[in-house]
This record gives sequence, C-alpha cells and structure tokens, in this order.
Amino acid sequence: MESIHQSAVEIQAPAAESEFPSAEEAASTAGQSQSGLHCLHGHVYALRRFGSLLFIVLRSRKGLEQIVVDKPELLVLAESLSCETAIRVRGNLMPKPGEQEVSELHACEIELLSTPNSALPVEISREKRMQSLSLNALMEYRPLTLRNEKVRAIFKIEAEFCRAFREFLCGQEFTEIHSPKIVSTGTEGGASLFSIDYFEKKAYLAQSPQFYKQMMVAVYERVFEIGPVYRAEEHNTARHLNEYISMDFEMGFIESEAELMAMQTRLLKHMFVAVEENCAKELALFSAKVPKFEKIPQLKLAEAVEILARKLGWKGEGNDLDPEGERLLFEYIKAETGSELVYLTHYPWKTRPFYAMPEKGSQASHSFDLLYKGLEITTGGQRIHRLEELEKAIFERGMPLESFGDYLQCFRYGMPPHGGLAIGLERIAKQLLDLKNVRQAALFPRDRTRISP
Amino acid sequence: MESIHQSAVEIQAPAAESEFPSAEEAASTAGQSQSGLHCLHGHVYALRRFGSLLFIVLRSRKGLEQIVVDKPELLVLAESLSCETAIRVRGNLMPKPGEQEVSELHACEIELLSTPNSALPVEISREKRMQSLSLNALMEYRPLTLRNEKVRAIFKIEAEFCRAFREFLCGQEFTEIHSPKIVSTGTEGGASLFSIDYFEKKAYLAQSPQFYKQMMVAVYERVFEIGPVYRAEEHNTARHLNEYISMDFEMGFIESEAELMAMQTRLLKHMFVAVEENCAKELALFSAKVPKFEKIPQLKLAEAVEILARKLGWKGEGNDLDPEGERLLFEYIKAETGSELVYLTHYPWKTRPFYAMPEKGSQASHSFDLLYKGLEITTGGQRIHRLEELEKAIFERGMPLESFGDYLQCFRYGMPPHGGLAIGLERIAKQLLDLKNVRQAALFPRDRTRISP
Repeated sequence: MESIHQSAVEIQAPAAESEFPSAEEAASTAGQSQSGLHCLHGHVYALRRFGSLLFIVLRSRKGLEQIVVDKPELLVLAESLSCETAIRVRGNLMPKPGEQEVSELHACEIELLSTPNSALPVEISREKRMQSLSLNALMEYRPLTLRNEKVRAIFKIEAEFCRAFREFLCGQEFTEIHSPKIVSTGTEGGASLFSIDYFEKKAYLAQSPQFYKQMMVAVYERVFEIGPVYRAEEHNTARHLNEYISMDFEMGFIESEAELMAMQTRLLKHMFVAVEENCAKELALFSAKVPKFEKIPQLKLAEAVEILARKLGWKGEGNDLDPEGERLLFEYIKAETGSELVYLTHYPWKTRPFYAMPEKGSQASHSFDLLYKGLEITTGGQRIHRLEELEKAIFERGMPLESFGDYLQCFRYGMPPHGGLAIGLERIAKQLLDLKNVRQAALFPRDRTRISP
Repeated sequence: MESIHQSAVEIQAPAAESEFPSAEEAASTAGQSQSGLHCLHGHVYALRRFGSLLFIVLRSRKGLEQIVVDKPELLVLAESLSCETAIRVRGNLMPKPGEQEVSELHACEIELLSTPNSALPVEISREKRMQSLSLNALMEYRPLTLRNEKVRAIFKIEAEFCRAFREFLCGQEFTEIHSPKIVSTGTEGGASLFSIDYFEKKAYLAQSPQFYKQMMVAVYERVFEIGPVYRAEEHNTARHLNEYISMDFEMGFIESEAELMAMQTRLLKHMFVAVEENCAKELALFSAKVPKFEKIPQLKLAEAVEILARKLGWKGEGNDLDPEGERLLFEYIKAETGSELVYLTHYPWKTRPFYAMPEKGSQASHSFDLLYKGLEITTGGQRIHRLEELEKAIFERGMPLESFGDYLQCFRYGMPPHGGLAIGLERIAKQLLDLKNVRQAALFPRDRTRISP
C-alpha cells in the first residue's frame, strides 16, 4: 500500500528563485505526509467490528480499502463516523495477519474533511437494500447511488471499454475525430430529432456522427469517435435511451462489409480481454464473464427468420427481429455454437438508412447488426460511395435532395468505397453484466421523462 | 513501405466447417493482394512530372506517399488522373535512388475506385491557393478543404492531444466519465444556454460537465471527460465557438488549487511532448514548436494588472484582462521568463462562478486561468465543498436554490475538498499552430451563424 497522498502531489525539486513562483513550488508543501506516517483518504463506505478492533472500509480512487482502528483513543471517534464522511487517515502500514505481501493501514490520526448533513436516504453499502431499490429511486438519488460499489463498477468497466476501443483502433491507424452534435439536418431526413433554438435558426441534435465520419474517411481513411448521440424516440423501454454514448468507426477502401465485421470481431475481442484483465474485481461483483471468441458466427437475416419460424415457433414479422425473436435466436445460437454473439447480415435495403449499400440484384443491403445475448449492440454496413447512386437512393425514399447538400458535396469530389459501424456503450455494458435496464448503464440517463439529475 | 492492403485485412486461419461461417472467413479472400505485388490505396493529391517519370502523390491514412509511374503504358492513364480520384495501385517496391532504407512503389496497375464528378472548387493541394482562401470559403467547402495536408494536420495534432491527455490522467488513476449534455439547468443559472424541445419539457445543452464531474469526485475521486460543451453566446470573435471540445478533469482530496495547477503542468508537458514526438511532420508544416517547461510561472491577477498598468501602458479594467492585456502580458512574461504560458491566480470571487472557493478574508477566489501565448486555454480552481457555504454562495448571487436541487443533493452526503479545470481543445491547438481563428481548429465549427456543413 503506497501513500496515496504523497503520490498525488509529486514534490518537485525547488527551482532557482524567480519573480514568478511556479505552481509546482506553491504545491510542493501542500498535503505532504507527516513524518513517517502513511496517509489514505476517501469516503467511509462501511464500518465493521471484530472484537476490540474496528475496520473502516474506505472508498478511494482505488476502490474499497480497509483501515484498522486498534488504538483505544481512536475507537470512539471511528465508531461515530457516519457513512460517506470524507476522511483523511494517517497511520502505520503493517502486514495483514495471515496474508503475506498485503499490508493494512493502522490508524494513528483520523481527520474529518466533510460530514454528511443528512442521514443517507439509501444505505448504499448494503447490497440487499440496493437490490430492493426501485429503478426510480436508483435514479432519483443518482449522485448517491453511484457511490455504491457495484454501481461504481459498471462505469469503471465502461471506461475500460472506451480505453480499449481507442487503443485497438489507434493501433489500426484510425484517427480520432470530434464531429458536431449541433446539426442542420438529420441523417434520416428529419424523424426522431430533438430541435434546438439556435439564435434565429432551428437546429437539431445529431442522431449519429454518420455523415461527418463518412466525410472524414476521405481525409484520414480510418476514423473513430466516442460521443453522445440523440434519439427523440417516444419509446420508453429497458433497452432505449434518448441520449447515449456511441462508439463509431468508419473506414475506407474496403471491398465489402465483411472487412468491417472482421475488424469489429478483433476490436471486441481486444475490448473484452482488456476488461477481463483490468476489471477483474468489477466483473466478479456481477459474477460476469466476458465472451471468448476468435470468430463470431454469422447468419443472413432471412436465414435467421426461417430458423426462428421453422424450428423455434417464432410468430414475428419477416423484415426484422423483435425482442422475442432476438432472445430465441440467442438461445439457439448459443446451444448450437457456444457463441453469445451473432452477426445478422443482408438486412433488406428498405429497412436500413438510405446510405446503406444495396446488394446488386436483390432487395438486400450490405449491412449487418451484431447481437450480444439477444440484444443488438452494433449496426453497421458498407455505404453507397458514388454520388449518382446516393442521389437515387435519397430520391427513392422520397426525401428532398436539398436537405443533404453538405453531405453530398463530399461525394462530388471522389469518395472511396467505405463503411463503418456504431457500438452502443451502455448496451454492451448492460449485456456483459446482465443488467435489467440500460438506464443502469448510463451515468445520468436521459429517457422519455427524465432530464435530471 | 508495407502493403497497406494486406495489413488492412488480416487473413485468418480457416476454421473448421460450420453451419455459420464467421465474418473472418467471409473476409479472408476479400482484397487479397495479387501475387507478389504490393498495394497502396488513397486519393490522388497531386501529380508531379520529372522528365519521363510521373509521380503520384497519394493521400492515405499514413499521410502523403509517393508512387512512381515509369511504365509507358500507364503514363497516359496516370496523367489523366484528376485530383481526389480514389485509386488502388499495385506495383513493386524498389529502393528510392539516393536514399537508403526508403523504398517507393513503382506502379504496375492503377485501379480507379471513384472519380470526382465536378472540378474541384478549391485547389486543395496548392498551399498558396489555400492561403488565399477566405475563412468563409474554407468553411463552406469544409468536406473538401479538410483534405488539404495542412488542415488535416491540425486535427491529427488534436487527436494526439486527446490521446495524451487520457494517457496521462489514466496513469494518475483518473477515471473517464460521460456526463449528459441534455440538462435541466445551467451551471451559471440560466445565461448563455441553448434550449431544446425535450418532449413536453424544456431542456438545455450543457455549458460544461461541471456539476456532473463534481458529483463523480465522490464516486471515483479523480475523473476526466473529453466532450462537447455549448455556449449560446452572441459574440462572434476569432477566439469563440458556440460548440467546442472541453477537456475536463476534477479531483478530490486536494489541499488547494496549487495541486490542480501542478497536475496540469505535468499533464500539459506530457501532451506537448507526445505531440512533438508523434506529430513531427504535422508541426513542421506550421513551423510550430511545442513549449518546453518543467514549471509554469504564476502571477496573481492583481499583480498582472499592476504590471500591465504600470509598465506596459495598458488601459483596461481591473477585474479581468481584455485580449490586448493578455497579449501585452504574454510578451512581458515571455521576455522576462522565456515562458509562453502563465498562470493567473486569485481571480475576484464575484467574476467567477458561484461554486468557486472564496479565499478567506479577501475578495479573491481559489481559482486560476492559464494563458498560452496570450490566450486563456484553461479555467480552473478549487470548488466549495460544504453544503452551507454553497447555499450561501447561490443566495449571494441572487439565484434560486431550487434550481440546483440535484447538484446540492450530492453535497448533503459528504463531499471532499476538490477542484478541477477545463482545457479548450481548439484553443490549445490554435495557439500551438498560430492559427488566426479558432474556427480553423474546429472540424465543423458552430458559431453565431454557422450550423453547416
């Protein structure tokens, strides 16, 4: 156990005297650990008593840590600590009985930095109480419930997914971009858009970085973005959010959508391995296991529909799967191949956005979804890259060409064959951890009725 | 020079036969390089003729690369290539005359993937033409002008700033978060907010992740976020955007704002070194040099104002610097210390947001700005962490307490001393590269009048 406090403020060598003291000099004496004592700080998560000993379970940036209070003069103070009090503890590091190489801090001083003003409305360190909370209470008290060990773990895992996503794609020579979220037109021609009062104009929140990432393919060939996207959809289900984090990539000079799927398979493998290696504690809290794969099975949508109807008694419609169809298919694929993931390909062009590349001589498109435990986590595909074909597609959908002027501009000047995909961050986390509701995987979810906290 | 094409599609070992072919199998034959020939793809950036040779300057994901066309039967085709045509070239790698260890592709086949439909309205590969473009033209044709070598370099550098920002902070045990951009209230009580029609409700675009990153300090102690922020400000200057990328961090258990400044100094050093090492070509295009420092000088705002008035003949007002004051101060600090960066500290509390920590016994606050070449790129400071003080501050500003209910909730349950800062991505890039206008550092800028492309 190192002294967190010392590592937080690295002491710099003193500089030559100067008219302007540097920030480092000013900081160099702040927060220095006192002579020989180690220092920990954090929030009191729980207290545990064993005979004459008291243990403080402290939540720090490292997670939960345990502090031993065995000095009689500190026991009264320690026992009176209410949960969530912010404290700084100085003491001695001593080996933990029975566990070699592990040391514990034995407190000599406890400094109270900030005490709660009210009793906690939710006992966040008691898992049973947390489990019995309604989704509404979980969200109402979000600034507090996020401090629970398991809830906190969800977003630790999401941070690791993001880190690994970027790491893999940078390794494949993708460039990160930041596209605007304020846009003048929708990617689908106007449906499901939130409108903004933008000075004298009407603007909208971007449904996806789609048009911009495509434009950027001509600049960098391979681009990615992790950012918020907005869907003004009325549905209020366990799998939908009105604002969510989309992990997008787009790449040029592909021959078909198969390259996109192959790239994603390696990307997801990298992301899952990273979470397994770096979030083992967090996964264990959910008894969750990352999927292991070298390949992901794939099926044409029509084949999936046929299997569902013929073998599994599914009663749904033919152009897409409903949640029940997705669930049945997941169980079937899992039983047949062992895989929790499956690519569905060859979606009908009519059910996909206009920019999807149609398959020659069929009604299908070069697009796909990826289902993970029966939930779509990715949509992707090859895009139309020739101006005339794109204009024709917009015309066929009955949309006005002039709405897409900026987008079409790009195609006027040479666009390579390209495609890409988008992974929903909250959805992949929900599925990995078997969360009941995607809202649990959003830090501060925005849904049909909720815009706070 | 490696075969880009082969590396793009890694060929997987064939799997055992299965009912469901994997995406990798489907991809394994796509785009295979033909027998022995190397393959490059990209856009034709420029053509150069030397005697009987023609060179194609190709823009690929690696940047600009040169292809030699020396086969007479290819010359006619190659000479007819218009700029921005997307091509795939197969050929032989041969050593470049006079340069050991460098090889060039000598074309055997040129495949046209997509040709421009119109003549380019801007000759993007001619720097003089680009320089003479108005800002308006640069932005009107953004999908095209971004393909220019220098413009492209700006966002390569920004991507590296972001990568290095995250790398450094992850190393300091910060956790990445994604806070909502749709909010129910502003961080400053309602001014400068874009409003959104959110179903039956009125919502706003977040001016900063301020409240959320503070709430997350109680969860992870140290958090960061890179994301868009929104300012509905009327000013239309060379340094303002209405949507920009904010690089935020917030950390708990600090003793003073000096720790924030010390952390940022090390962070910026890491970011500048990363850009110097990984974007040498891009920097060279601008003859730009990253600042080198171990420390950054700091001045109280009042001291800066006094120096400006007494020594530099500045005529501005006392509570903040105007652009002229910032410029004069930059020149002075540069001359006195050699530093292009300077911290200004002790801003009057009244000119800062209500949550800034006031200094005891003075009118000042524990807050600071960082100026880089005379432009504010960072604002930060310690925050009030006690509920009563925060309520008092809101009251003193004449703002309604009930607007801040969700934010205050967090402070009811124990908040440690904390603080943080935000760096403007476009501004730091603008200053590094000496761009005239911050719009040049935004991929698709949003300003007083522009919401497209």
